[in-house]
Amino acid sequence: MTRFPEEKVFKDPVHSYIYVSDPLIWDLINTRAFQRLRRIRQLGTSYLTFHGAEHSRFAHALGAYELMRRVLSHFHRNTADWPEDQRLWFLGTAAALLHDLGHGPFSHALEHAFHTRHEEWTIRILLEDPQVSQVLARVDGRFGRDVADIVAGRSEHRLLSALISSQLDVDRIDYLIRDAVATGVNYGKLELDRLIRTLRPYSPGSDRTGSGPAPSGDRDMTVVIKKSGVHTVEQYILARYLMYVQVYLHPVTRGSDILLNLILQRALEVHRQGRLAYVPRPLRPFLDKEPGDLEVAEYLALDEAVLVAAFGEWQAEPDPILADLANRFLDRRLCEYLDYPASRPDLWDELQEAAREAGLDPAYHLALDRIAPSPYYHYTKGISVLDERGRLADLSQWSPLVRALSLQEAVYQRLYVAQDLIRPDAGGDRLRRLLQELRHSS
Amino acid sequence: MTRFPEEKVFKDPVHSYIYVSDPLIWDLINTRAFQRLRRIRQLGTSYLTFHGAEHSRFAHALGAYELMRRVLSHFHRNTADWPEDQRLWFLGTAAALLHDLGHGPFSHALEHAFHTRHEEWTIRILLEDPQVSQVLARVDGRFGRDVADIVAGRSEHRLLSALISSQLDVDRIDYLIRDAVATGVNYGKLELDRLIRTLRPYSPGSDRTGSGPAPSGDRDMTVVIKKSGVHTVEQYILARYLMYVQVYLHPVTRGSDILLNLILQRALEVHRQGRLAYVPRPLRPFLDKEPGDLEVAEYLALDEAVLVAAFGEWQAEPDPILADLANRFLDRRLCEYLDYPASRPDLWDELQEAAREAGLDPAYHLALDRIAPSPYYHYTKGISVLDERGRLADLSQWSPLVRALSLQEAVYQRLYVAQDLIRPDAGGDRLRRLLQELRHSS
Amino acid sequence: MTRFPEEKVFKDPVHSYIYVSDPLIWDLINTRAFQRLRRIRQLGTSYLTFHGAEHSRFAHALGAYELMRRVLSHFHRNTADWPEDQRLWFLGTAAALLHDLGHGPFSHALEHAFHTRHEEWTIRILLEDPQVSQVLARVDGRFGRDVADIVAGRSEHRLLSALISSQLDVDRIDYLIRDAVATGVNYGKLELDRLIRTLRPYSPGSDRTGSGPAPSGDRDMTVVIKKSGVHTVEQYILARYLMYVQVYLHPVTRGSDILLNLILQRALEVHRQGRLAYVPRPLRPFLDKEPGDLEVAEYLALDEAVLVAAFGEWQAEPDPILADLANRFLDRRLCEYLDYPASRPDLWDELQEAAREAGLDPAYHLALDRIAPSPYYHYTKGISVLDERGRLADLSQWSPLVRALSLQEAVYQRLYVAQDLIRPDAGGDRLRRLLQELRHSS
Amino acid sequence: MTRFPEEKVFKDPVHSYIYVSDPLIWDLINTRAFQRLRRIRQLGTSYLTFHGAEHSRFAHALGAYELMRRVLSHFHRNTADWPEDQRLWFLGTAAALLHDLGHGPFSHALEHAFHTRHEEWTIRILLEDPQVSQVLARVDGRFGRDVADIVAGRSEHRLLSALISSQLDVDRIDYLIRDAVATGVNYGKLELDRLIRTLRPYSPGSDRTGSGPAPSGDRDMTVVIKKSGVHTVEQYILARYLMYVQVYLHPVTRGSDILLNLILQRALEVHRQGRLAYVPRPLRPFLDKEPGDLEVAEYLALDEAVLVAAFGEWQAEPDPILADLANRFLDRRLCEYLDYPASRPDLWDELQEAAREAGLDPAYHLALDRIAPSPYYHYTKGISVLDERGRLADLSQWSPLVRALSLQEAVYQRLYVAQDLIRPDAGGDRLRRLLQELRHSS
Repeated sequence: MTRFPEEKVFKDPVHSYIYVSDPLIWDLINTRAFQRLRRIRQLGTSYLTFHGAEHSRFAHALGAYELMRRVLSHFHRNTADWPEDQRLWFLGTAAALLHDLGHGPFSHALEHAFHTRHEEWTIRILLEDPQVSQVLARVDGRFGRDVADIVAGRSEHRLLSALISSQLDVDRIDYLIRDAVATGVNYGKLELDRLIRTLRPYSPGSDRTGSGPAPSGDRDMTVVIKKSGVHTVEQYILARYLMYVQVYLHPVTRGSDILLNLILQRALEVHRQGRLAYVPRPLRPFLDKEPGDLEVAEYLALDEAVLVAAFGEWQAEPDPILADLANRFLDRRLCEYLDYPASRPDLWDELQEAAREAGLDPAYHLALDRIAPSPYYHYTKGISVLDERGRLADLSQWSPLVRALSLQEAVYQRLYVAQDLIRPDAGGDRLRRLLQELRHSS
Repeated sequence: MTRFPEEKVFKDPVHSYIYVSDPLIWDLINTRAFQRLRRIRQLGTSYLTFHGAEHSRFAHALGAYELMRRVLSHFHRNTADWPEDQRLWFLGTAAALLHDLGHGPFSHALEHAFHTRHEEWTIRILLEDPQVSQVLARVDGRFGRDVADIVAGRSEHRLLSALISSQLDVDRIDYLIRDAVATGVNYGKLELDRLIRTLRPYSPGSDRTGSGPAPSGDRDMTVVIKKSGVHTVEQYILARYLMYVQVYLHPVTRGSDILLNLILQRALEVHRQGRLAYVPRPLRPFLDKEPGDLEVAEYLALDEAVLVAAFGEWQAEPDPILADLANRFLDRRLCEYLDYPASRPDLWDELQEAAREAGLDPAYHLALDRIAPSPYYHYTKGISVLDERGRLADLSQWSPLVRALSLQEAVYQRLYVAQDLIRPDAGGDRLRRLLQELRHSS
Repeated sequence: MTRFPEEKVFKDPVHSYIYVSDPLIWDLINTRAFQRLRRIRQLGTSYLTFHGAEHSRFAHALGAYELMRRVLSHFHRNTADWPEDQRLWFLGTAAALLHDLGHGPFSHALEHAFHTRHEEWTIRILLEDPQVSQVLARVDGRFGRDVADIVAGRSEHRLLSALISSQLDVDRIDYLIRDAVATGVNYGKLELDRLIRTLRPYSPGSDRTGSGPAPSGDRDMTVVIKKSGVHTVEQYILARYLMYVQVYLHPVTRGSDILLNLILQRALEVHRQGRLAYVPRPLRPFLDKEPGDLEVAEYLALDEAVLVAAFGEWQAEPDPILADLANRFLDRRLCEYLDYPASRPDLWDELQEAAREAGLDPAYHLALDRIAPSPYYHYTKGISVLDERGRLADLSQWSPLVRALSLQEAVYQRLYVAQDLIRPDAGGDRLRRLLQELRHSS
Repeated sequence: MTRFPEEKVFKDPVHSYIYVSDPLIWDLINTRAFQRLRRIRQLGTSYLTFHGAEHSRFAHALGAYELMRRVLSHFHRNTADWPEDQRLWFLGTAAALLHDLGHGPFSHALEHAFHTRHEEWTIRILLEDPQVSQVLARVDGRFGRDVADIVAGRSEHRLLSALISSQLDVDRIDYLIRDAVATGVNYGKLELDRLIRTLRPYSPGSDRTGSGPAPSGDRDMTVVIKKSGVHTVEQYILARYLMYVQVYLHPVTRGSDILLNLILQRALEVHRQGRLAYVPRPLRPFLDKEPGDLEVAEYLALDEAVLVAAFGEWQAEPDPILADLANRFLDRRLCEYLDYPASRPDLWDELQEAAREAGLDPAYHLALDRIAPSPYYHYTKGISVLDERGRLADLSQWSPLVRALSLQEAVYQRLYVAQDLIRPDAGGDRLRRLLQELRHSS
């Protein structure tokens, strides 16, 4: 498969340029399934907290592709025995480009409401979407399936799988930097060029050291880091942690995510009661079908524009709760939040009762958010360090800092409440008193 | 009116932070009319050319406010006779914040299709929107009208008007930098801090030089630049020029703007024929009313989510032209373009006829785009330079570079054509031949 | 003391501009003692590792001043009871500007060779230098002494002292960012604006919370951080750590520092034996006097140009060891290094003997470098966090990450050896064998 | 000649990393002639105006090499017929690395005083320095001579010569960006990646268009730009202009350059009269010999440390003029300057006489600086644009902006005067009056 006589480029605020030399990649970008990613924000509702966070998953997918291109190019230049194999190159770059193809609008809130999983939808689109599967089939008949296996993490190409999804992969590296640039925070700045240069293909059977082992084909290989790069990877681990605690888990964003989820749940409930006045066509299959029965074309028809436009209509729904929730989202009248002490699970029932007295519906005007440590930002293990003498050890053995992150048990628990709806009269007194008490016990 | 005991901030990718100390500004930001700007992109359809250009008018409005805050703070610190007047401060910062309040979705294309003007709508919202007008009235009964006059450029506060809208104003400075950051190009980088520092309030009656004249109230004042800042302002003029030729007037963006306009025009035409199957509720008043009869609440209900969701529906319209245009937008199947020589106006009729033969509708599948010099990026006059001896002269007298821009007569003319729709058989031959001829005569 | 009618500025690659409104600061900058800091690099010999690290202590001193200006301005804007006191402002800004006035060329190596301490020399210059002391005395008779006390950390102005020198001060914040920018590494990037905004003046006697306590004069105050800023301060602590392990303690830099120190020690030794052919005039008092007997003017006459020019001359010294060392520095023929295991102290004697056999002088061609944890980059305690309820606790109680740094016991030990001088014949065999052994035991 | 198994890198504040894969380049960097560039600032005395401008010619030389590496790599990837020739690669990268090898300390001032020319010294060092010539000879016997011819602009390798020295070359591109980063101004920011991508090798005999012509060996080729890159090159031309007017020709820098030149001239004069007390050894040949008689080793022994250390000594010279000039430089007591009207050449004699009356020596305390347009920042012609149809035209034909720069006739003329030396009594009256008059006539 020939390359373009001259590279094509996309101007990118993070990587300066995204370079495309292969018609395969170009044609994948131009499928409607990939263009749809322009209508899905990378950070969901975060733009209500950080107004810069309007960037799309389209941009991130290009970025992950570009990083894969750079990593593989680094392997070509600096690893004597790296296999010169065009199919391997296509597998890596196509998988990086398409790894998020199945994301829906406002991913997590939608997945929660409709029980969809974007990982599964990525695989289905790769294999079932007519355009995408046809472009992939131009390489060969097994190519689409192989890309899907890499994305799903069940491929024999362990090295490519690790570069797509592991504790240190092109997906995360791109989104940390991109989200930091878009929001305007500095926490996600990385030594990107050096981070790429610390990566090494590694073949476990080999006892080679230095610039890389002799692989017997790439299937025995995985990815490790050079020992001299430990501090650069520490910075990445810390950037990840800081981006989570400061941006991804920002209490205002958690609140807007909860709000979005409640809108969808209420709409579903009202619809099941036959009372939903406005149902946008692309949402209907989601409301009426089991998630497993959705067709690929139906899944792809839903985007953030459809949902936000629906919220506009729902402001006029007869159901007052749905109308209020939709309006809250559009006018950004978010709920207030306060720390909820782990020591007071007993309060929850009383709070719900007091909320009812105060004129609130506890199911929609009161929410408890609990954030537990997760492998997305807490590191336990998974990054192997290759030292000068050819020995492997986990990063946590070299870095007390990284170990400290794995010990961190912090669980945040926050109460969100639609305070503006509390009755001003005596009916709201009990709830007001309980909230006051909570503020002081934290 | 008291200030917050502690500043509130918005994290911003351009200015690091936006600082808000006045409850007045805070409450304006929280109106629904202002929050709606989150759902309108600053650069319309440019994101189809530069994938980073997803930033909203909400972000730009905050940025213009922040720059006004810094300019006025610079006047306070460095101009002995600058009036210490809270109302003046409020006028400037509120006008900067709200100057774009009337922008509709995909501004220019929409204005063209429905004959609305965002400048007029800004004034109407300032004066008629219940929330906005009420917050403004907290300063005093004339305040809202005064802000509107400044935005409309008909205020006695000439200095504030000039800072909002002139050849060198906070609106343009913010958007040049912000659009450059979002798209990832370097053309819009400015010496921002120095640019602000070259600005001086100037009172024409005064013969004072140096750090500033003695104004008898701010109404006699206007804004000039110090002579030592001429090169810094040259850079701004050139950044403006480069952003226009490289970003704002990018042929792909012009093409997507034309496409969007054609969608709306076709929808209007089909609707008038009673054939439009899907009419989103917020669009109905735009389709049915004269622009002057629209109410403020109706105008504010339309945003980009509504339009993009409508395009999704229109892909299934019975009218094949509308369905195709809507699909082109969503799947980014843009028309191809070629230079159209000014010397061949005679070709136009033949092209239309050939298009018809080829199975195209010339009104929707063929478009001629003509770009003439404009004061937005061509400078003729308007920036006054104050020299060391107190004399005023226009910037063009000090800068041959700036004069060169005013001489530039370049008029681009480009033909856009939906080439994929040309009949593959003999019917398309004439059009194919004409296009080939055009390519070689440019 | 009046301000300039218009601010003066210095263009700065880190802070965009350094703003000077006070003639006091301007005149201090123009003293010869301060201008001399232009001839002393901020990072000593680091430019031999990172070629960008040519920036001077002059730039850093201006940067520390600018940060103090911004911190005090933040206190003015956001702390209701912050004392409006011009003398306090002068004390803070002058102390920040002058805190490093006593640094000599290639600070640490010189201090080691000649037993000088830059902290003491800063105080002496503040009090004894005719120009500096005279400008300071323009405020009042006690002012110079008060500035010196703040710099020395023995002032009653605890808050200002803490802002100059503590675990979180303007000195370190400036140098971390500045050194990162100059070297080109990303490790020192901080959320600077937010870091400043997390600082709060705090008066221990007060039980006030929120935007700050009511101090009875600034002398009871110290500096704390708001709880919401914990993660921002974590980033600072981590940036500090990463800059130390990746830049300041870089093994190549440690090697060039050792080399420089050996040159000076050898020159001293040769001079004491009456064999030093070339003695640059400004170095003579350092060679001949006890450190306590040096006069201020003598101390100030030595700069990096004098030393580097002397090294040029010393390449032609009759003493072959000095000639070789000087040439190594200028031509950057640095010693090679290898990890030296803590478990093998027994090897040291044998290594020295083998070095002698190999034709080396163990005192000058063999060096052991030992780096132990230090409060400069290991945090134990010292930053107080003020929570929402007005309680104080050390940062380490809020941050497991920061605690992890304090636990880190890592001690590096490295052997530097002038490998190119080892005799190629059998005489060098034993040393070659020992070095080989060391390489494998690490 | 084999490559390193793994690239070596230098961390760079401008290009992130400088990549070195060839032992040839590595060994050239490690020659003493190249290491000496660490002791010569890229911008001479500019650090007295912009304190960040301490960066060395060593950094710039690495940067020019890196850009050449990227340009040639772009040709390899995107030009079908680009010759795959290792010697061509070595010629280009070595010439870029070494093009400034002959620069002396404070280049222009020194060249003026001692009648040396750095271009000639570069050639001499390439051919005569034992280390450099020996490394170059490892490629082949003609290689050193060929590199010298390229640097001298007399090579048959026209394309490489143009990339080293023309109106658009790697030398200028690197220094514009690097000087902008170091000084902290934004004027030099370029769209670097795109600028490189607009370059095309071009073979005049060919009538090929598109991605590049078929060259019959590289000797027939030169470099052109693609028409789509015209605006990107406009930005480069404008950045160049702005950097010249705002940074390189800054009046304070011109003043410090003049001062440095006067110091050297005075020292030469005093030395010829046998009155110079302190003569640093490396300066002696410059004082005693004709420039043509200097040997390469003598030339290389002089660096900025030697000169600055000499100035320190010269503060104590018996000659009061030299002592004062030297002290002015070190303590940054620069002369004041004022615009000198082109219309008043008649004043010059009177000014000199009045200066004598006022106690000044007109030859050392009065200087007239005249800056005329130069091809370094005024563009007339030299950059060829290749349009879509294969025609060549000069950039000025496509760009009115660039034409405007070529028309610019501005000549600055400034008078520098050591105002602090003017006698306070009546003797200084006439000079004071004349200066006052000049200030008002400008």
